[in-house]
Order: sequence, then C-alpha cells, then structure tokens
Amino acid sequence: MIERQQPFVLTMKALPVLQLLFLATLVATTQGSFEHDIADQIIHLLRPKSGVGGSQVGNISCLSWRLGVETHNIIDWTTIPAACEGYVGHYMLGDQYRKDSEVVTHEAYVYAEGLNLTNDGNNLWVFDIDETTLSNLPYYAEHGFGVEVYNSTAFTAWVLEGIAPALPESLKLYKKLLALGIKVAFITGREESQRNVTETNLKNVGYDTWETLVLKDSSYSGSTAVVYKSAERKKLEESGYRIIGNIGDQWSDIMGTNIGNRTFKLPDPMYYIS
Amino acid sequence: MIERQQPFVLTMKALPVLQLLFLATLVATTQGSFEHDIADQIIHLLRPKSGVGGSQVGNISCLSWRLGVETHNIIDWTTIPAACEGYVGHYMLGDQYRKDSEVVTHEAYVYAEGLNLTNDGNNLWVFDIDETTLSNLPYYAEHGFGVEVYNSTAFTAWVLEGIAPALPESLKLYKKLLALGIKVAFITGREESQRNVTETNLKNVGYDTWETLVLKDSSYSGSTAVVYKSAERKKLEESGYRIIGNIGDQWSDIMGTNIGNRTFKLPDPMYYIS
Repeated sequence: MIERQQPFVLTMKALPVLQLLFLATLVATTQGSFEHDIADQIIHLLRPKSGVGGSQVGNISCLSWRLGVETHNIIDWTTIPAACEGYVGHYMLGDQYRKDSEVVTHEAYVYAEGLNLTNDGNNLWVFDIDETTLSNLPYYAEHGFGVEVYNSTAFTAWVLEGIAPALPESLKLYKKLLALGIKVAFITGREESQRNVTETNLKNVGYDTWETLVLKDSSYSGSTAVVYKSAERKKLEESGYRIIGNIGDQWSDIMGTNIGNRTFKLPDPMYYIS
Repeated sequence: MIERQQPFVLTMKALPVLQLLFLATLVATTQGSFEHDIADQIIHLLRPKSGVGGSQVGNISCLSWRLGVETHNIIDWTTIPAACEGYVGHYMLGDQYRKDSEVVTHEAYVYAEGLNLTNDGNNLWVFDIDETTLSNLPYYAEHGFGVEVYNSTAFTAWVLEGIAPALPESLKLYKKLLALGIKVAFITGREESQRNVTETNLKNVGYDTWETLVLKDSSYSGSTAVVYKSAERKKLEESGYRIIGNIGDQWSDIMGTNIGNRTFKLPDPMYYIS
C-alpha cells in the first residue's frame, strides 16, 4: 500500500493506518526499532512537497540547531526551521530519539536509586505529560514535526481522542520510581477541561496510579508554563512533599522555582513552550 | 611525515608539529575546515591502541552520551566513556564542534544586538576562559579528549606555555559585543598565580581589552565553580554592572546566583566541572 519513491497526497483514508503503525511502534518497541526506510517513506508521504534535508541544509546545520534547542541556547522559537523538517522527522522516528530518551531516564533512575530514601511517603517525582509521559508523535508526524505553526484546534482534537501512546522510556522510569516507593505527580499544560480524557489516556497506556494530576486551571490563563508550574510545585512542597526529581521535555518544566532536587530534560526538537 | 593507516607511538619530536597544526586550524579558520581524514590520522597517532569508535560502541550511544552531558542530564562525571574517545575526538576536531559553537555564539549576538541597550557603561558580558574564550584542544588531543583522568601537573604546564588558541567563534562574539558598547569580564577557574600568563595568552590571540579578569583566589580553595563564580558575579553586580549575558562551556559557569539576564552554553564533551 505504501510505495517507495512515489510521493502522493495523503488521503484521509490512509491516516489511521499510519497512526496505527506509529502507535504500534511506540508501544511495542523498547529500543526504537523503527526502520529508517519506513520513516523515509512516511516523511515523504506526509509532506510530499518538502525535501528531506540531510544533516545540513543550506546554511543551517540541523544537528547544531537541535543541540542549540536542547541546551536552551535557542529559545522562544515558534516552528522548526523548514530545512530541518526531514532531519527532525528522521530523528523522531529513528533510533536516536529513543536512545537519547533512554540515557536521560537511565540517569534519572540511577540518581533516584542512589538516594537511599526514607520511605515516609513524602518523596515525590514530578512528570510533565506531553512528550514526556505521553507521546504526541502520531500527531506531529502528520503536521511536519513542528514545521507547521501550532494549531490549537487540531491539537486539541488529537488530545481528545485520548490515544497518545506512552513514551516507553518514561513509562519504564515511572514504574521503577514507584517500585522505589516514590510517589508521582503529573503537572501538565493541558487544561482542566481535559482531565477525564487525560486520566483515561494515562491509565490505558500503563500509568495506573498517581498522587496528583495537576492540569492548568483557567486562573493561569496567560501565564507562562514556568510561572504556572513553579506555582503548582510550590503548593506541593508547601503541603509536605519533597520534590526529589522533575522530568520534562521543555526547559519550562524544570526552570523557575521549586524545581526539585534534580531535574531531567528529555529531548524535544518539535516545539518550544516558555 | 604522517602516514595513514600506520599507527605508531608518537615521539615527542612530532608533537610541536601537530600542535602547530591544531593552532593554525583553530586560529585561521572560521568555519571548521579541519578535514576528517587528518583528524582520523591524528587520533590514531595520538592513541594508537584505542579503537576509533563510531557513533555507537557496545551499549553506549556516544551521541546520546554527549547530548546527555550538554543538557546537564549526565553530571558529576570524571572521564568520558572509554568507548567514546574516538567519537569525541572526531567531534572536537571535526566541523560539528565548530558549527555547534557557531550556533551558540550567533544566538548570543542576535540576543545582545536586540537589546537596544542604553550605553551607560554598565552593561557587562561574562566570559569563562577555558574551552570558551581560549581552547585547550591542543592539550586534550594529546590526552585522549577527556578519557584520561585530569592531570593537574600536566595541564598546568600546558597553561603556563600560554599558547592556547582562541575559540574562533567566541573571539568573533567578543569583538561584536565590544562593538555594541558592551564591556567584558572574564571569570575563570584558573588560579590567581596564572594571571600574567593568562593575560598574555588572551592578548596574543586577540582579546585585547577587558573590564576585569577574575581568577580563582586561594580563599575559594575547595569551593565549587558554581559557588566561586556566583560570588564573583554578585560582586560585579553590587559594584554597579548589569550582567546582560554570560557564556561558558560548563553548566557551572551559568548556574547558581547572579547568572545574568541570559546564559549560553558552549559545547564541551571533554570534561566536567561542578
């Protein structure tokens, strides 16, 4: 059904198949077995008019751009460079994204395990949700991996489907932290109105327990994620929890105040939230 | 003189030639023209018994390891993974290190230029020195690119030679910041006893003016770089300067207090300073 080297405009009929392919991959694999040639085809298919950039297109080194984003040197950007769509697509669908995530969650676990915590029930680990706990890669693969301007209507529709797969590395970390007796809090930029679908989505993919799920209340409307998340972490600490770890894909998840004893930054070259 | 595919134990006689090669490259090029085949030869020559690792050796993805280091997910490490020596060597001697540095300094300049500062003489930019202002790559190329445990005697001897080249991207940023009317402060972990050789080295490679050069006083002996540099930045702010920017290759250069209005992290996969 998917022919190589023969780009065509993707029909709506084909989308569910591709989506299943993504989902199956993210859910089933533990080490990013997605083949590059399949990724090639999908990127071609989804964005037939865009050239698949290599590691460097024109004056932009997409590798350097991605490193700049991940290190918080490049900030306040709205879309990925057009020339880097193919590069980011290959990265996200290929092994490297998974390996990069694995290194982060491995470090997080080694750190947590080494703390030798007293289990008084107050040790808390904060997880962001999108691109941390759950993956919206099926959505972004259909929207140019961040090359398109954020479309809140389309993204909300995707969220409401409630079928985002787990990021496998984060799910593994989550389970291992629980086994250490650490409690989990989710703090997400998703709105309070999306509580039910988010809870169901989380449970369906394996996140079956948590201490609290904090969604963005309308009172934070207009506030940055740094402000909102700092305030909510502060509340948690004031209620007696110790935030021993904090993981997110955005720097705004792990900056500000009450960031926790140690923070971890998962890769995300697709979008930026301040 | 340097034959390919024929590793041999490097004699001391050959070292100055290689060093000149490094120096010439770092000083003369602006866009990392160091050829990979030359880098291959040098890595082989300098560490004849070590295999040149590709992007992944055994269970370690050296790409993921480097990203983990640059994003501050992997901390408190003493040496690079042995399996990544070849990878780090290629990275440091190849184009990518220079491109990655260029993206950082470019962002820094775009930020500074966009500030539209009032020139009251109090705008200050803080530069770290080693692997930021000056490059010790000639030294590290002879010491396994960080695979060897830090040898303070050998490194001090190298510093005292006073021949470290400028990191070209930082020198360019430095000149452009001065042209914007921004003053420059150097804050370095080098000791006060190395003031003269450091000043001479800086001037010889093009850093010809600065507001202050802060070296680590013996009173900070035993303190981390974060503590020492935070305290010195605080002093600068208390004396009336506004730290509008701060650039270093270590996270400890840009963490702590009084970090400045915006910080920039240059790549350095060779060593870690807390």
